[in-house]
Amino acid sequence: MEIDLVAENKQIVLKSYVNGSPVETDMELKLGNRVKLEAPKGSKGVLVKNLYLSCDPYMRGRMQDFHASYIPPFTPGSVIEGFGVSKVVDSDDPNFKKGEFVTGLTNWEEYTLILKTGQLRKIQQDDAIPLSYHVGLLGMPGITAYAGFYEVCAPKKGDYVYVSAASGAVGQLVGQLAKLHGCYVVGSAGTSHKVHLIKNKLGFDEAFNYKEELDLEAALARYFPQGIDIYFDNVGGSMLDAALANMRVHGRVAVCGMVSQNSRTDKQSFSHMFSVISKRITIKGFLQSDFTELYPRFLEDITGFYKQGKIVYIENMNDGLETAPAAFAALFSGKNVGKQVIRVASE
Amino acid sequence: MEIDLVAENKQIVLKSYVNGSPVETDMELKLGNRVKLEAPKGSKGVLVKNLYLSCDPYMRGRMQDFHASYIPPFTPGSVIEGFGVSKVVDSDDPNFKKGEFVTGLTNWEEYTLILKTGQLRKIQQDDAIPLSYHVGLLGMPGITAYAGFYEVCAPKKGDYVYVSAASGAVGQLVGQLAKLHGCYVVGSAGTSHKVHLIKNKLGFDEAFNYKEELDLEAALARYFPQGIDIYFDNVGGSMLDAALANMRVHGRVAVCGMVSQNSRTDKQSFSHMFSVISKRITIKGFLQSDFTELYPRFLEDITGFYKQGKIVYIENMNDGLETAPAAFAALFSGKNVGKQVIRVASE
Repeated sequence: MEIDLVAENKQIVLKSYVNGSPVETDMELKLGNRVKLEAPKGSKGVLVKNLYLSCDPYMRGRMQDFHASYIPPFTPGSVIEGFGVSKVVDSDDPNFKKGEFVTGLTNWEEYTLILKTGQLRKIQQDDAIPLSYHVGLLGMPGITAYAGFYEVCAPKKGDYVYVSAASGAVGQLVGQLAKLHGCYVVGSAGTSHKVHLIKNKLGFDEAFNYKEELDLEAALARYFPQGIDIYFDNVGGSMLDAALANMRVHGRVAVCGMVSQNSRTDKQSFSHMFSVISKRITIKGFLQSDFTELYPRFLEDITGFYKQGKIVYIENMNDGLETAPAAFAALFSGKNVGKQVIRVASE
Repeated sequence: MEIDLVAENKQIVLKSYVNGSPVETDMELKLGNRVKLEAPKGSKGVLVKNLYLSCDPYMRGRMQDFHASYIPPFTPGSVIEGFGVSKVVDSDDPNFKKGEFVTGLTNWEEYTLILKTGQLRKIQQDDAIPLSYHVGLLGMPGITAYAGFYEVCAPKKGDYVYVSAASGAVGQLVGQLAKLHGCYVVGSAGTSHKVHLIKNKLGFDEAFNYKEELDLEAALARYFPQGIDIYFDNVGGSMLDAALANMRVHGRVAVCGMVSQNSRTDKQSFSHMFSVISKRITIKGFLQSDFTELYPRFLEDITGFYKQGKIVYIENMNDGLETAPAAFAALFSGKNVGKQVIRVASE
């Protein structure tokens, strides 16, 4: 006789499309349909219990009514999709077994039937590495930092490297990789606490609070009297302009994010675009999804660095699915420190 | 007995530093010091008679009081320096002989004593190629187009290529090289006459008059329904923004000039900077001076293309040194068509 295990399934849904930056009330906790804790025969899917959910700035783009981007928008009234770490409860896919841990795209809910199992990665459990790191240091933000720094920035030992949003999920790793590469590294962030962490925990050479600077161009000139070889840009807008003014000849700008901008068509004003010619600057936008072939090497390198104590990783962990809307909104007000993760359940 | 040949020496001098775009009256014709038609013993210089002088947009930057660029500004009250084609009258440099033709940096005057002979290139006279082409097709604009297209744009057969200022000294060659490479090429310019030349004389697939377009983004979408792989940017500003909106994934923008901008710190407003990330666009500024090692191959290739009738070159030739100020100012009002040259003297 089959036991028909059924669970209620709390979810976070998007209420309606967002203009500008999301706030907590753009999302709400709902009780979804009761869900059978099984992967239906023939579905080739896996039924997972979600343990950790990832709050990532790129998700803002999916909350806006814009259908021509690299990833489609969410559907208002429906559960939010994002990266997570989950445990397999039942599987109709021979590649996954009950009890295994996986990471990949799942939903912001307690239990999810994942049908696109091809994008899941099985986690090799390792007591030395927190499971949640698989949506951070060893997940999408990690490969973003890794590919962005090594492949897009073309770094050389001794380069002068500037990282904005430097305590964030991506920035904190970029700066540490740059230090390991023999670069001089300065980071910026928006609170004195973050500045302290960037210098003392993450080991950057210098850090500053951009909110305390009336003139970003002058601030960068102070921290980089010799100029900047590499700017790893997470914020866009006036910070990018200030960096252009301070780049060295043949400098490289890797454009990873524009968290300072409320929407993808916000006007951004530049006074130093001419520097692109006079200093032969390369500005290169990138997405980690173009670098999937690097994943095995990335995992090996970063796991090694972490276990050898060469890098650390700062997380901002919130407990409970119900905390997700506020935690997500905090990405854009700068309230959280480090990689923002939601712990939905214990293993 | 030595004959002491002396000539009066008409010159064009910059009256004072310019804000924004130069006008004819920013320069004036003066009678310089009478000049001995000899290269002084021990000077290692060459005394040349200037035949053709080149009007190039980059020279605007040297008319502004800005000392931190890749090339120093002119000195008000002094003769203007620029590229030219000249004939050696007397030489104290064993590499050059009387009667030879040279091209390189000279002054806007009738006779010049050139001391920096290392930058001069001796012209192999060829009846099939006008001497003046050595400041255009085979000179700085030519190598700019050649290096910019082949080295910066990373072109592939079948790419969709957009060129602004497409009838200009650089743009006209870029488009023709792109056609020879098997690309689909559209150019823009500011008069219907230029548009006619771009399509019918230069052989672009399409061309349009940007001044007749209320919405540049929509215009580019009309000419590139599939999007743009390569934008060769000579103008900057709103045209660059419109191009960003229309780039394809992994598109490349080679930034060669920003002739739409009045000064190097003009505010440029962008609504489509986010496309740099979502479409993984590379924006790369360049100067031809970084590609001097290409010069021999460039000369051979372009001379070959020209002699085989595969490319043409449009010049705007003005007669007489006194026409230089107006001709130079016309670069920024769009009045001239093709490469602007001043014929100072016959051979």
